[in-house]
Amino acid sequence: MSASSRLLTASPDAVAAAARRVMARCDELARVTATPGRIERVYLSPEHARVNRLAAEWMRELGMRTWQDAAGNQVGRIETVGGRQPRSMSRTPQNIAGSVRSSRESAEFVSALGEAPALLLGSHLDTVIDAGRFDGIAGVLIALEVVRLLRVPTEGGWAVPLPFPIEVVAFSDEEGTRFGKALLGSSAVAGSWNDAWWTLTDAEGVSLRQAFLEFGLDPARIGEAARRPDELVAYLEAHIEQGPALDRAGEPLAVVSSIASARRFQLVVEGEARHAGGTPYDMRHDALLGASEAALAVERVCAAEHHIIGTVGRFEAFPGAVNVIPGEVRFSLDLRGEFDGERDRVWDVLSRDLDEIMGRRGLRWSAREVHSAPAVFCAPLLQDVVAAGIRATLPVRSDAAPVLFSPAGHDGMALGAITDVGMLFLRNPDGISHHPDEFVSAGDVAHGIRALAESILHLAAEPR
Amino acid sequence: MSASSRLLTASPDAVAAAARRVMARCDELARVTATPGRIERVYLSPEHARVNRLAAEWMRELGMRTWQDAAGNQVGRIETVGGRQPRSMSRTPQNIAGSVRSSRESAEFVSALGEAPALLLGSHLDTVIDAGRFDGIAGVLIALEVVRLLRVPTEGGWAVPLPFPIEVVAFSDEEGTRFGKALLGSSAVAGSWNDAWWTLTDAEGVSLRQAFLEFGLDPARIGEAARRPDELVAYLEAHIEQGPALDRAGEPLAVVSSIASARRFQLVVEGEARHAGGTPYDMRHDALLGASEAALAVERVCAAEHHIIGTVGRFEAFPGAVNVIPGEVRFSLDLRGEFDGERDRVWDVLSRDLDEIMGRRGLRWSAREVHSAPAVFCAPLLQDVVAAGIRATLPVRSDAAPVLFSPAGHDGMALGAITDVGMLFLRNPDGISHHPDEFVSAGDVAHGIRALAESILHLAAEPR
Repeated sequence: MSASSRLLTASPDAVAAAARRVMARCDELARVTATPGRIERVYLSPEHARVNRLAAEWMRELGMRTWQDAAGNQVGRIETVGGRQPRSMSRTPQNIAGSVRSSRESAEFVSALGEAPALLLGSHLDTVIDAGRFDGIAGVLIALEVVRLLRVPTEGGWAVPLPFPIEVVAFSDEEGTRFGKALLGSSAVAGSWNDAWWTLTDAEGVSLRQAFLEFGLDPARIGEAARRPDELVAYLEAHIEQGPALDRAGEPLAVVSSIASARRFQLVVEGEARHAGGTPYDMRHDALLGASEAALAVERVCAAEHHIIGTVGRFEAFPGAVNVIPGEVRFSLDLRGEFDGERDRVWDVLSRDLDEIMGRRGLRWSAREVHSAPAVFCAPLLQDVVAAGIRATLPVRSDAAPVLFSPAGHDGMALGAITDVGMLFLRNPDGISHHPDEFVSAGDVAHGIRALAESILHLAAEPR
Repeated sequence: MSASSRLLTASPDAVAAAARRVMARCDELARVTATPGRIERVYLSPEHARVNRLAAEWMRELGMRTWQDAAGNQVGRIETVGGRQPRSMSRTPQNIAGSVRSSRESAEFVSALGEAPALLLGSHLDTVIDAGRFDGIAGVLIALEVVRLLRVPTEGGWAVPLPFPIEVVAFSDEEGTRFGKALLGSSAVAGSWNDAWWTLTDAEGVSLRQAFLEFGLDPARIGEAARRPDELVAYLEAHIEQGPALDRAGEPLAVVSSIASARRFQLVVEGEARHAGGTPYDMRHDALLGASEAALAVERVCAAEHHIIGTVGRFEAFPGAVNVIPGEVRFSLDLRGEFDGERDRVWDVLSRDLDEIMGRRGLRWSAREVHSAPAVFCAPLLQDVVAAGIRATLPVRSDAAPVLFSPAGHDGMALGAITDVGMLFLRNPDGISHHPDEFVSAGDVAHGIRALAESILHLAAEPR
């Protein structure tokens, strides 16, 4: 493909208006929160239902057919001219249509016989606690604006004939805030739902199964959310960087080369709760001090490595009284790396450090792995088309598009199991994310919209 | 006084029965808890009201007049033959009676004109979270058994004429579990209530003032709980050691020489909540890591000192999500020492350490002092009579009674402001306290009951 081709016919004004719409809708969604004054929108909450309804409305505005899938993901689909078979397709259209129909006959979605494989765009609408307003959300809204720009609204047709329908998905749980397990929404779509997850509980003791029922979803039908590889052309996602690399480099956009390998653990340190006044130091088995040393060991070990990041984010001491030595501490460890092997080696080093610390202090420790995902490498073809999309936005279009590895996890990690994944990063000023100060400028959103639209047009132009 | 005199006429069987009653009632009170399966009984809770009712019933069984004072302390009073003026008394009986009546006219307690100054016995019935069943509680129940043994129940009279009435008080808040401020009950009795405390809040945001109203107490009448020095002869308390010294020494009882000087702080470390994946180590301001270093500094500095103990018991990280770097940690520091000056010097050292740690990590920190109490030295006369009481229980009565400093705080710290304080420690196996495994044996309780009764008889026999 040409390094500098510009395929999108939309005017700069139209792109700027689209970016303003993304910013306004990020504000609108930020107001849908469980706790006034800060953003908190977790899986299967009333807020989740509200943002799904809003997203569905915006999808229908664009002429999309919409449904909420069996995992609470909100999906919109729009047909384009000239549907085509995916390159990798092996089954006959009849087979596909038959199985699609049987797995969805009771859903809002009604299968179209012989439906063509779709290009999936999207990101997620759930948030961490006290979140920013762009992480995930901006990606969903950018995808909708791309659909808008690729059409010629006055004619209701398509500016450029696309060889595949487009689906936009707003994933329901990427952060894992509520049940401690990330990527629930995209795992359901990827067909990798694990029945062991049903008994996961939230902070109030509500199980995932119970939360499904309360939300109006049927746990028995979770399999209906799964998509087959032959239903999809690829998955493309725009997302803020959640790090400072683009801001430091003065670049608005980057191609993502791969998504970090990640493991999450819940650790427990057990000692002895004793009276703070009466227990001399030589008789203490203070779980808090052991866990404090552990948190510092995570920092020391990971900071000395290349592209390995470990974070202790949750940390609770029990019984939690001013005058009682903590007898137990529970804390989380989030461990990420560019490569699975490096990440696993670091966990082994940390495990030996924890043995030493806890042994010396007369404490017991244990770890339960609650999440594990191998590194996902973005498909070379998709890296190429995203790079072409980015170059089309650059003043000097022969410039190379920046390429970044993503230490942050994304829905693409789950989607990688069923289709090719490509990602586009948007500059995130000062790298502040998962925080109310999280930001992306309207100008960079405009660049992102144009680059994603160009990427799709470059993908459509690929010989297959 | 004679080193070996035995004044109590009660039989060993009666004392053993009294000890069994204390053990059974400790079990009974342990069942009054906010959380089934563990003991949790905090100030102004429904459980507080229930144990007050039980204690009042047991007091009335002994012929005591009972009232709940304006701070929720449960008090019982019994007159004895031959009431006497305290040595230090300066006002006329008319003056005393007049002010007593005016300050109590609406309470359950009805002032008796010319009422004699009383010997106050007692301890507290509130607990920490997931507490043992003896801390405080055993002292209240031992006091009640001492009243029983000093009387001749069949005649309803007194085995030995006592020159002072006896009051038993079950203090309502010694631990400070609910509002983070210890000794609320005894501070009210000591007349040292501070109006700034009304706005203290519990974990649910309920203010102390609101909790008073919900409990049925009138904040405006808190002054009515205050006792005047001329109403009291002294305060004597039996308590488990809450430490391993007596167990290590193989001794059942000790005289307490002084109660630790204590300060409590609520500390806040502030950094920046950021995305756990995207934020490289050089851009992190992780409040958890700063607070972890602080907790370890407390241990390092205090352990190197003599008779200084510092404990971080409460420790909360925010926002508390697996994939967010903690932006804020709130934790408590409980600092105790035998001498005020040493304790304050150590706090200065710690403050400088915290400046260094937080400065290096780009964090802010602040501390709010929520409790401060100077060391309280037990009155020499009361140390003598408690020692005589203990010696009367020893096989070789010329043996010296062990003397201990108490790093743990006690209601006597507050009472020291208005009357002489004496304390008796009971052996606490393995020094386990503030924990479900906290224990004291029935045999040691029997020793404690006898020693406290003997102490009172020795005090009564003192020339004044």
